Formats: sequence, C-alpha cells, structure tokens
Amino acid sequence: MSQITIVGDGQMGLVLAMLLAEKGTAVRITGPFPDQVATLAKSRVSQRLPGLTLPARVEVVAEAKDAVDGADLLVNAIPTQFIRRVWEPLAAATSSAAIRASVAKGIEVSTLERPSEILAEFAPDAPLVVLSGPTIAAELARRLPATMVAASDNEDAARVVQELFGTSWMRIYTNTDPLGVELAGAAKNVIAIAAGIIDGLAAGYNAKSALLARGLSEIVRLGTAMGANVETFFGIAGVGDLATTCFSPEGRNRTCGERLGVGQTLKEVLDGMGSVVEGVETARGMLELARRHDIELPIMEAVHAILHEGLDPRDAITGLMGREQKPERIG
Amino acid sequence: MSQITIVGDGQMGLVLAMLLAEKGTAVRITGPFPDQVATLAKSRVSQRLPGLTLPARVEVVAEAKDAVDGADLLVNAIPTQFIRRVWEPLAAATSSAAIRASVAKGIEVSTLERPSEILAEFAPDAPLVVLSGPTIAAELARRLPATMVAASDNEDAARVVQELFGTSWMRIYTNTDPLGVELAGAAKNVIAIAAGIIDGLAAGYNAKSALLARGLSEIVRLGTAMGANVETFFGIAGVGDLATTCFSPEGRNRTCGERLGVGQTLKEVLDGMGSVVEGVETARGMLELARRHDIELPIMEAVHAILHEGLDPRDAITGLMGREQKPERIG
Repeated sequence: MSQITIVGDGQMGLVLAMLLAEKGTAVRITGPFPDQVATLAKSRVSQRLPGLTLPARVEVVAEAKDAVDGADLLVNAIPTQFIRRVWEPLAAATSSAAIRASVAKGIEVSTLERPSEILAEFAPDAPLVVLSGPTIAAELARRLPATMVAASDNEDAARVVQELFGTSWMRIYTNTDPLGVELAGAAKNVIAIAAGIIDGLAAGYNAKSALLARGLSEIVRLGTAMGANVETFFGIAGVGDLATTCFSPEGRNRTCGERLGVGQTLKEVLDGMGSVVEGVETARGMLELARRHDIELPIMEAVHAILHEGLDPRDAITGLMGREQKPERIG
Repeated sequence: MSQITIVGDGQMGLVLAMLLAEKGTAVRITGPFPDQVATLAKSRVSQRLPGLTLPARVEVVAEAKDAVDGADLLVNAIPTQFIRRVWEPLAAATSSAAIRASVAKGIEVSTLERPSEILAEFAPDAPLVVLSGPTIAAELARRLPATMVAASDNEDAARVVQELFGTSWMRIYTNTDPLGVELAGAAKNVIAIAAGIIDGLAAGYNAKSALLARGLSEIVRLGTAMGANVETFFGIAGVGDLATTCFSPEGRNRTCGERLGVGQTLKEVLDGMGSVVEGVETARGMLELARRHDIELPIMEAVHAILHEGLDPRDAITGLMGREQKPERIG
C-alpha cells in the first residue's frame, strides 16, 4: 500500500492512524468537519481520546476530498448514521479500485443497510473489508493487547488488511463472513445498553452474564435468518466484542444504559455524552430487521421500548425474568 | 418432592438451601465434615459465604448418612475432586430412585469423569440433572436476578428441578445436553484462571474479551468432538457462565489467576485462598481429554503450563499474541 486514508477523526480513526504510523506506513486522517481537523493537525491531540498523541508521521488533512485523493486503501471510521452524507460527496475523488475497510458498528435506520453496504453504493467494484473486534479505544491508545477480524468476501483484500494492521499488540484474524461480523457489531451495541441498565440497577454479574448469553442468542437467531455464518457469533467480533462492550466501564453504549438505569431520560443521557451512541438508533434498525425476518428479540425489543417508548427499566427486567420458564433455545 | 437433601455446605449448597427454604420446601443440608456442619447448625452462618443466614426452616444435619436418608432429591454441592470419597459411603443410605442434581464444575482428574458420571457410579438407575449457570454465590445470597439450566437426558427430571429451583429471582431453563453443560462448567474455570492472569498483568478488557472468545472456541472444539451440542456453549451455562467467571471480581478461579499474574506462586495463591479452586486440577483433566480426542487447546495448555510447569504468565501472553496471524477458526 502506498497511501492509506482514514476518514473519521473519532476514537477508532485516531487509534488506527497511530497504529499505522508506528508501523512506518504512510497514513492520512481526515474528518467530516474541516475546522476540527485543522485543530487536530496543529494540536495532534483530541478530546475524543485523551491520552493519544498522533505521531508526526500521520498526515492530518482538513479537506476530506484532498485526503482521499490517490489513496489505495480507504478506512471508514464515521458512525453509521453519518456514513452516507460523508462518503457520497467523496465518491468522485476516490479510486474505485481502492480497498474500503470499515470499522463502523451499526445499521443505517433509513435503509437498514450495513456500513459496508453503504460504502459499496459509492464504489460498487471496490473490495470491501469489515474490521471489527473488542477494541475499547482507550486501551488501544495504550497499546494493550487486542484482536480484530478482517472480514471480506474478497480473501485477498482481507489478507491485505490483516497484514497492514497486525502488530505486536494487535492480532488480526481473517474471516469470510462480513455480513455476520457487521450484524454482530451492530447488535452488540443494543445489548450493551441493556448491560448498562443492569449496572444502573445494580443487578449484578450473574444477571449481566445471563443477558450476554440470551442477547447473543438473539444475535444468532437474527443473523442466521439473514444468512450469516453461526460461527462468526462465537468469534472475536461476536461474543468477544459483545463481552468487552457489556463489561468495560469505558464503552459508550454501556454507559448510556447505566445512566438510563439510574433514572436519567434518554435526552439527558445523550446531552451529557457528547459523542454518538450507536446503539440508540441501531435499536430501531434491529427491530425492523427482526420484523422483516419474523424473528422475536425480547431483549432488543425491551431496549427499544426503554429508549424510544418510555418503558421503565425496572419493569423491563421484571418482564424478562417473569416470563414462563422454558427449555433453553439458542438458534 | 417431600424431602430434598443438599450434600455440600459450601457457597452453592448454602445458597440453594436458602432458596428452597424461602419457597417453603422441606430441605436438609449436610457436609463432609460433621464438626463444621454442627457449628453451622448452631450459628446458621458460614465464613464461606458471609452475608447469608440460613432460614430456620433449613434442617442442618451433621451426619451425612442421616441427612440423605429418605430424600427423594439429592443435590451434590461437593467440589469435583472430592465427590467420590463423599458419595461412595452414602450409596447404601440413599434411595436409588431419588433424582441426583449436581452443581459441581470440574473433571475428576484420576478418571476424567464429569460430576454426574461419578454420581451415576453409585446410583446407576437414578435420574441425573446438571444444574449450572452464571451463579456468583454472593449475588445469589442477596437474591439478585440469575439464571441456570437444568440439563438432563431425562426431561421429566429436568422439569422437576426447573420447577423446584425457579423463583422470582432465579429463572431456570431446561436443556437436554448434560455432557455439554458439564464440560462448559469445567472448562470455564480453566479459562477464568487465564482471565485473572490478564487482570494481574493489567492487560485490559479487549485482551480479556478476546481470551473469552478464543477460550470459548476451545471449549466448543473439545465439546463437539466429545459429542456435546454446540448450542449449549452459546447458552446460559456456556458463554453466560464463562462471562461471569471471567469478569466478576468475586470468582475464585479468576482471583487465583490474578494473583498468579502479579507474581505469586501457585502454592502462595492456594494457601491464601482457603477454598477449592476447581480450575487448578481441572486444567489437568481438560488437557488429558484434549489429548485423547486429538484437539489443540492453546489457551488451556498455557494455563496448565503456568499452573503446573512454571511458565511465566508474561511469556504465555507473548506466546499467544505472537503466533502467526491466521484465519479465524471456531469449531
């Protein structure tokens, strides 16, 4: 790769720029707001991820069109609901052959498309790779050990991304199921809101672990109905990412849920967070996908009802625990 | 059920006695050491589980033979490596038709038998039920919400146990794969030691979640080779129990690993813990099972080497992270 450009100056964009620069790879980073990027270019630090200083080798480019020009690998680090409006105007400036790698985790509510599907609309012939896993950014900024999968229908492209992002502290596995990886990444943010609610209610690790298992089973049920590979949900980007998102105190979706659990309204929570909480909108997308595929998702339905229909979190837990006792059913 | 007897006055035995008594069920508890049980009979509290006081309705019986007499449901809450020596002398005193329900999580190293297999030796015709799930006892003592599976080849017996132990705060699912449930319960204690080591090394949530996913994949690989149902490992007693054991600060196996991670020797750790750490011996059993079924278990092998062969935990992590990057493989 002669030139890599990361579009998105949030946590994952910053971390991946640092990682590539430290490997000696030529990397540019840009973002949707030229003013913010210009500030980053000077300061080399961002309040989005205190503790990370961008290495001098990272080229910070305020105008996204300039940044993507000539890149042979493009990384999407824009949150799901904003991908379309950021990438559409860039289409003419990007090489149609450049690999697109996406780290976004969500479902576009207006279309029910996954991040890589949105990117494909603006580059139908480009190889697409989904890069996902348990990656709390503050830990990556400290080079703590982590893993991701590089998932693609195009195995060569997946191996390119594996090679490019693998380091002594970041182990990358290739995977051939981008659909499953993206669904798992989207759904886990919804389950993590439920995990946070359990924390807010101080209901304990047993309850949260049961939620993780039953939530995973909802992901499996929807994912396999949509054609994903069940093994993906057992993997790094499935249960691995779900676990870190449910248990790390730093995750935004879990934190959002915790604040709902102690009684804040959604508006109060979001006003106080200052960054996108992917699960809030993605809950709508997951329920619509479930409806289309005729799948029941009791936990995600409860999260949706808490977020968007005013259900009291306490009543939601009581409702989930109080259902008739049944045989365990996974798929 | 007219009479239920719990054999084992450790954490799970105490909690289950409390749960049954609060439901109005006639329940006895006993243990392997009559002196200790006699003390419990008077004090109604145990240093094994501070915070729990046995309800007056629980009958505490010092002599195990007296306690099991006439019981039509027997609960095994004795740690795996001690089941044989506790139950063998009781065989003549127990009804051969009484359901045996076991909550032990391990593999008997000398025979590679699962807890329910050991119990079956002394009651070949009794219905056997495995009761397992994410159940940190200190949370159960506070009646925080939790789930378990009641797994048996005998579906009627599983439903009896489901009915008996289900409460407003304990939701029980039936399951038809006792082999998978017991293997998952044994293996998770070994993986939890690795999770604790990660905590001791302060390697973070990303690393621990990757470990959880890769550890689960080892459990799946061994379990399916032995004939278990893959879905069990996605369930409450699979990934659910694995998650709570890896993340709850209260788990003994995780705590053991954490102390190894900060540099204590195994002897120092075990001397300081005062209760059985199931994963330490079970690691031997898991490796022997893997050898017999020709399965590679890199994480469990590393834990075994740290526990029993003096491998430095830091070198183990470096070894696991430094292997050649590969495609993700689950089963």
